[in-house]
Amino acid sequence: MNKSKRFLNNPRNIKQEVTNGFVLANKNRLHKIYDGNVLVANNLAKDKVGLLIGGGMGAEPHFMGYVGKNMADCAVVGNFYAAPSPNIILQATRAVDRKKGVQYLYNNYAGDNLSFDMAAELAEEEGIQTKTVRISDNIGSIPINRKSDRGGIAGGILIVKVAGGAANSVDNLDDLHRITKKANDNTRSLITAAKSGTYLDSGELMFYLPENEIEIGIGFQGEPGLLRTKMLPADEIVDYMLEQILDDLPLVENDEVVLLINNMGATTFIELLIINNRINQIHTEKKIFIFDTLIGNYYSSQEMSGFSISLMKLDDELKKFYNLTASSFNFMKGDL
Amino acid sequence: MNKSKRFLNNPRNIKQEVTNGFVLANKNRLHKIYDGNVLVANNLAKDKVGLLIGGGMGAEPHFMGYVGKNMADCAVVGNFYAAPSPNIILQATRAVDRKKGVQYLYNNYAGDNLSFDMAAELAEEEGIQTKTVRISDNIGSIPINRKSDRGGIAGGILIVKVAGGAANSVDNLDDLHRITKKANDNTRSLITAAKSGTYLDSGELMFYLPENEIEIGIGFQGEPGLLRTKMLPADEIVDYMLEQILDDLPLVENDEVVLLINNMGATTFIELLIINNRINQIHTEKKIFIFDTLIGNYYSSQEMSGFSISLMKLDDELKKFYNLTASSFNFMKGDL
Repeated sequence: MNKSKRFLNNPRNIKQEVTNGFVLANKNRLHKIYDGNVLVANNLAKDKVGLLIGGGMGAEPHFMGYVGKNMADCAVVGNFYAAPSPNIILQATRAVDRKKGVQYLYNNYAGDNLSFDMAAELAEEEGIQTKTVRISDNIGSIPINRKSDRGGIAGGILIVKVAGGAANSVDNLDDLHRITKKANDNTRSLITAAKSGTYLDSGELMFYLPENEIEIGIGFQGEPGLLRTKMLPADEIVDYMLEQILDDLPLVENDEVVLLINNMGATTFIELLIINNRINQIHTEKKIFIFDTLIGNYYSSQEMSGFSISLMKLDDELKKFYNLTASSFNFMKGDL
Repeated sequence: MNKSKRFLNNPRNIKQEVTNGFVLANKNRLHKIYDGNVLVANNLAKDKVGLLIGGGMGAEPHFMGYVGKNMADCAVVGNFYAAPSPNIILQATRAVDRKKGVQYLYNNYAGDNLSFDMAAELAEEEGIQTKTVRISDNIGSIPINRKSDRGGIAGGILIVKVAGGAANSVDNLDDLHRITKKANDNTRSLITAAKSGTYLDSGELMFYLPENEIEIGIGFQGEPGLLRTKMLPADEIVDYMLEQILDDLPLVENDEVVLLINNMGATTFIELLIINNRINQIHTEKKIFIFDTLIGNYYSSQEMSGFSISLMKLDDELKKFYNLTASSFNFMKGDL
């Protein structure tokens, strides 16, 4: 069996079992097409602008967990840490296009960019208009003067939430694109890792962190970050992270944000609440208002011990779409 | 710092920071009283029957995550792995009593039983009627002929869901007690662990499992279970677990259930979906219908690698209350 004692069967069947398992838990919400490579929401409205998200497996429940009412219309699922193929994306594009075009929203990585760009060209040849926003919330590894090179991590969920609400409200792709782009421009995230997760197939660590060291700003597969240091008290880690994020956005007095504290895998809810406590202290001091708080498992890196903090700066428009009720397997929002 | 690189500050302040962190993420939903030992839903209806849940810390988001509309009215929070005191429970009882009495719902462990029973006596002296249901869904360590000695684990969330819906619908405590008891009688759970979590303060493992071994039926702190074995394929583990659960309930053709696949800490969503895939295969073969499926972090044992499977057998009444919309931080149910 695998070294890391993961609960698996034949590794060759993982993707099939995972997408089956997901659809079986979501029968009323979505169905799969193209051998489970594409998960499409049931009962799509007839004249809506489309919202298509996706990427390689490995950060579950991202993206599949965010398909549903007022969320994405469709998620495309690649293999582990590999972009979905242009053909799969094209087929998904056809499935959600309602003659109003389709917004692509995915993490900014070279492989994904290539696949989605090729799919966009193929779609255009068929007369389907597409627009693209590449999620680039991770400020850890790339400075702001190269902002367009930054990758996408957990903050993407906040962007999907806004874009999903907007896609059900606006009547043309240009508006959806403008709003989705603004949501991305207004979102920043940082990961801190204490221990690497393992690759599902080999059981090997994805990266190595020495005993009693952590890394702040690390990428979700261990790409180098801002600061490697000995273990620190939670409050000091949060202080450092927020300083980077608030400065990068930037945020000032009377700004309003949505906060997402995301478990990268093996961090407990207790720890995430301790982190939330400190984040609130800082926001109170700085007179930045937290409109809504999400805490939990939204975007993972296998069983990594670590967490990310994401902030999305709101304006009236983003707030309106963020605040719409929504139903996906891993993000529900009620007006209860 | 702590051996296990957990994100903490001064261990003495954990409970304060955790309850603060939780209330700050739930300002519209609940508030805390009695130094954070009691979390009470905002805007409780004036004439409802009360539902009070609680226990020691250590299995978060259980119980605090399940306070809200059509869920529990209040959660009492003990120290780590220690029952809340009778006095705290009494104060919580007063806070939620609306002259219609209060249903206690908590895990069946000796310390909790003692505290809640004493609180019930003190409440009675003040003229507040209470009734008790002890969650006893864990079939792992105790055979069915000693069913009343079984402890409570993740299946308790399904019971809180039903009882929370019922508490907003019935007009007397006797009815709520009857329904809550039936929900408990109809619920079974089993845990399988691959690796122990660690104690927050010491960083020590909570229990020891040899390399490449797992234990099925283990208690949430490592109490001996049904079977210790070398690591097996996920499907074989699920087959063994379901055989025990289906037999214990028992479930037969045309029965209908709610399924909860719970992450004990460090198990990934991918693995939980693979497990769901197999559970569905077996239910299809046996013609048992899965009415709803929950998959995620509902009840933990620190960063334990492992999962639990819970099934609640439905009848028309349980289904009606389970199916009501609900809003708590860790369990939302919409009609979307």
